[in-house]
Amino acid sequence: MDIRKLFLDNPWRKRVLFGDKKVGVCQVELTPTRLKDGSCRQNKPVRIYDNCGAWADPNFHFDTSKGLPNLRGDWIDERADTEVVGTLPTSAKNPFGGRKIRKAKSGCRPTQMAYAKKGIITPEMEYVAVRENLALINELESEMSPNAPRDSLFIQHEGSPKRKGFEITPEFVRDEIARGRAIIPANINHPEIEPAIIGRNFLTKINTNIGNSSMASSIDEEIEKMLWAIKWGSDTLMDLSTGADITDTREWIIRNCPTPVGTVPLYQALEKVGGIAEDLTWEVYRDVLIEQAEQGVDYFTIHAGVLQKFLPIASRRMAGIASRGGSIMAKWMLTHNRENFLFEHWDDICDIMSHYDVSFSIGDGLRPGAIADANDEAQFGELKVQGELCKRAWNFDVQVMCEGPGHVPFQMIEQNMENQLDWCAEAPFYTLGPLVSDIGAGYDHITATIGGVMIGWKGTAMLCYVTPKEHLGLPERDDVREGVVAFKLAAHACDLAKGHPASQYRDNVMSLARAEFRWRDQINLALDPERAEEFRMRNDKEFTRDNAGMHHCTMCGPKFCSMRASIEIKERFGQNTPTEE
Amino acid sequence: MDIRKLFLDNPWRKRVLFGDKKVGVCQVELTPTRLKDGSCRQNKPVRIYDNCGAWADPNFHFDTSKGLPNLRGDWIDERADTEVVGTLPTSAKNPFGGRKIRKAKSGCRPTQMAYAKKGIITPEMEYVAVRENLALINELESEMSPNAPRDSLFIQHEGSPKRKGFEITPEFVRDEIARGRAIIPANINHPEIEPAIIGRNFLTKINTNIGNSSMASSIDEEIEKMLWAIKWGSDTLMDLSTGADITDTREWIIRNCPTPVGTVPLYQALEKVGGIAEDLTWEVYRDVLIEQAEQGVDYFTIHAGVLQKFLPIASRRMAGIASRGGSIMAKWMLTHNRENFLFEHWDDICDIMSHYDVSFSIGDGLRPGAIADANDEAQFGELKVQGELCKRAWNFDVQVMCEGPGHVPFQMIEQNMENQLDWCAEAPFYTLGPLVSDIGAGYDHITATIGGVMIGWKGTAMLCYVTPKEHLGLPERDDVREGVVAFKLAAHACDLAKGHPASQYRDNVMSLARAEFRWRDQINLALDPERAEEFRMRNDKEFTRDNAGMHHCTMCGPKFCSMRASIEIKERFGQNTPTEE
Repeated sequence: MDIRKLFLDNPWRKRVLFGDKKVGVCQVELTPTRLKDGSCRQNKPVRIYDNCGAWADPNFHFDTSKGLPNLRGDWIDERADTEVVGTLPTSAKNPFGGRKIRKAKSGCRPTQMAYAKKGIITPEMEYVAVRENLALINELESEMSPNAPRDSLFIQHEGSPKRKGFEITPEFVRDEIARGRAIIPANINHPEIEPAIIGRNFLTKINTNIGNSSMASSIDEEIEKMLWAIKWGSDTLMDLSTGADITDTREWIIRNCPTPVGTVPLYQALEKVGGIAEDLTWEVYRDVLIEQAEQGVDYFTIHAGVLQKFLPIASRRMAGIASRGGSIMAKWMLTHNRENFLFEHWDDICDIMSHYDVSFSIGDGLRPGAIADANDEAQFGELKVQGELCKRAWNFDVQVMCEGPGHVPFQMIEQNMENQLDWCAEAPFYTLGPLVSDIGAGYDHITATIGGVMIGWKGTAMLCYVTPKEHLGLPERDDVREGVVAFKLAAHACDLAKGHPASQYRDNVMSLARAEFRWRDQINLALDPERAEEFRMRNDKEFTRDNAGMHHCTMCGPKFCSMRASIEIKERFGQNTPTEE
Repeated sequence: MDIRKLFLDNPWRKRVLFGDKKVGVCQVELTPTRLKDGSCRQNKPVRIYDNCGAWADPNFHFDTSKGLPNLRGDWIDERADTEVVGTLPTSAKNPFGGRKIRKAKSGCRPTQMAYAKKGIITPEMEYVAVRENLALINELESEMSPNAPRDSLFIQHEGSPKRKGFEITPEFVRDEIARGRAIIPANINHPEIEPAIIGRNFLTKINTNIGNSSMASSIDEEIEKMLWAIKWGSDTLMDLSTGADITDTREWIIRNCPTPVGTVPLYQALEKVGGIAEDLTWEVYRDVLIEQAEQGVDYFTIHAGVLQKFLPIASRRMAGIASRGGSIMAKWMLTHNRENFLFEHWDDICDIMSHYDVSFSIGDGLRPGAIADANDEAQFGELKVQGELCKRAWNFDVQVMCEGPGHVPFQMIEQNMENQLDWCAEAPFYTLGPLVSDIGAGYDHITATIGGVMIGWKGTAMLCYVTPKEHLGLPERDDVREGVVAFKLAAHACDLAKGHPASQYRDNVMSLARAEFRWRDQINLALDPERAEEFRMRNDKEFTRDNAGMHHCTMCGPKFCSMRASIEIKERFGQNTPTEE
């Protein structure tokens, strides 16, 4: 795989850095519009939230064995509340052995939540504030071209929920984190990440799941999937590996991933006891937590809300316990006739995570795996427990998000969000879909975006992608692209629906490019410019993305075109309109 | 293309006929479940609404030059209110010349609405009643297996809107048609169709657009797209051809299409005047209407609601007039400074259509083509006019549906449905998406399913599919498949969300198959069994759809599997569970 080409093949989309924190943004250069009166309107570049980190920097080494630069290294050092407690073991299968391991100094809690509660604005908070603003709002502050068809491209729709203020300030970020309404997953042992914020008052984020199994994939394939996820816009990445080389695979991923990385530590613990759920112990699990926290995992999915009392209910379900983590713990509880040890050791877990600023993603082990099981007593019972666990984690200053369903029919989705906001005290919700039907196998990325937009509109902070392979097999590289782009689209639709102050800017610029036949701009503003270009060229061999003056396409042909007619109509009403080249 | 193979490659999905009307249904045969106690549960076949007509009959001739059998021929004859008025002209490019043309006898209106208003239940009404019931409800009347995990697989969710009754009766169908709330598009010159009903109290339908342009495609390619649309489940088909052989292409399609066929007659009228919108006349247009009505087109999109007064508003839009028909009429009105001749001749048009039972699909020529233009004065102004036109058409006993948007952000979709129900007196709504963002180029089938489920939940009767090529080029055969399956999924999600009494049955059977590792059943119950099988096999080479006993997949591998653990949990709670083979 030519990584340089993967990230740098489009000369009109470039990474630019802003401010003293060097916040990376993707800048899309637009073509000018030539008008009938002979003048020319320059179209300002559009800045898009960028997830690629140094991979989009033409001066980067592009060598996965060397890893990413340590953007946060100095920030962590300067806080002087952590210390080096050892070095990572060396391994023949990864070149990152010997890296220093950091941990909180005794009595310290180096978490973003602890700082936020104390009123401290960290560099991470400053970074995300610039990042959330710059990507979208920058243009709005600039003077609009006098030739633009409206005074401002930004329109606030009636009925959209208003935000507190137009601009995301570092203080707003701090306040949201202190309240538990948003998190910046950022392990002190993962200084390579570009901080991202997850919360319902920020841009909706998406998560990509990758990971091998005992039956498929290798370290190289997983690294490739990770890079593809980043390229197409993934905001966070979960490594769900259960197969060979589990520790080395994770190390390669963490050292090369510019976004937060999450895991389900239970998967590795299960491998350590030979795949026998009933052989799991707290001690085995605890050691895995520490190993992964030392590596730099930014958030852990922990299925502590699956309690004994819910199992009889779950056993009567159509699809039982679809969550892997949930079913592992259920099996353990039934064998030992004891309460979930993750629940019993919750405070111990919080204590460990507070030493590294690992965030919780409290698992929904009883999420419905079938439409028939949606919103049942098992699911909502667990959600209430998730809420209690949230509040206990906050007592340790550990950042928390809650995981949500699952298979839920469209009309029952809203209830999930309402209950979560209520029971989990507004901790960010992070859902898998929901999938609005059970019969979409092969197309479940679509089934899941439909439900995802509904729940995102109502306040979900992050959507976990689903790929077309869901229910059928492990996703491969191309499935990652399908899933990530579909969910970028869904997340954007959520931002529009929530009335995010600036999210419509990109749609408006796109629509104007469409109305003015600026094909290159249409392609570069699309979520997947490569596919847009490929499709545009398919039955129109003369087309290239540089050929901006071609005023027709295969849909109508050269004779009559509704977009060209619309230009004539505008002209009839006295507007200065684009001209053919 | 091997048409026989296209329709008959799956031995477990068969067309079966019910009742004296020989209503075709797709029957999916399931594998039995072997239980731990040694017994075996037979899983009853699932019947699915079938759109394939004789193409799914193994005894059919499979020759597109011979066309489909005339299912409705006798029904039309027996009503004795129509007469043969001529024969279709012969053509070197199609073998169907010389076919007899029917028209109403003087003073007669042979429309389903006219019959319904008189209290007559037609064979078409009886057919759709059986079809809507059989596909889904049949199983519910049968005794559920005593081993099934619930008393009934059908669950009525709280908050679902209740329907009048459980069963669709012919009288209910008649009443809905008489009220204008549903239509059976069924031209007396298209006796080949299997009648389908479009209305919000019935299963949500989907429409497929095909058609050539002057730049792409041939008759053969369009026939192939038509057959693909039918195979994947399209309920109606629009031929939007604007290129060469426009009449012959339509003739081939109508004679071979088992679903209703719609057109935009304005496209052919424009070709007749050399593509010059201002040269259009009522006389040219009228002749096209009659030609197409005589061929057997079942519904016409007519952009009569685009009035002069809306043009100044539309000229200030971001994307102007995105509808091709709307922009043609706008250009004509501006050139002649006269009102839309389709509006002025509305009664003449109604009169013509009442002679053949062609249904209206009143076009939304001012549908928004950009998020920024959604729900504006031009769009809603036209919708009110559409409502007036509806009522005038009903005076002629002509069946009507209304077309709807377009590009609309998610939170503004509901208002469209509310206004349409109010202003158009509950005439069926038929929408294009809506697309919830402008930046999805290459993935706009997804952008459109998201909005489609929202508006379908609120009452839209039919969703027009959108393909991944939308905004980029004409769809090809594979795009038709992507679009149709995505929209079948969306329509099903709408039915679930509306609480359609039996739509959850298929999800439940699928989920039970999933929980019991009946892989062949999972594949055959999916909306696209071929893709499900292909994906399942991709990284699991040993898998075949006959290999139902393979109790793991590449997702978890053989060691621990949540679905297998769920079976163990059910067993712990005393249930008789499936066993490994």
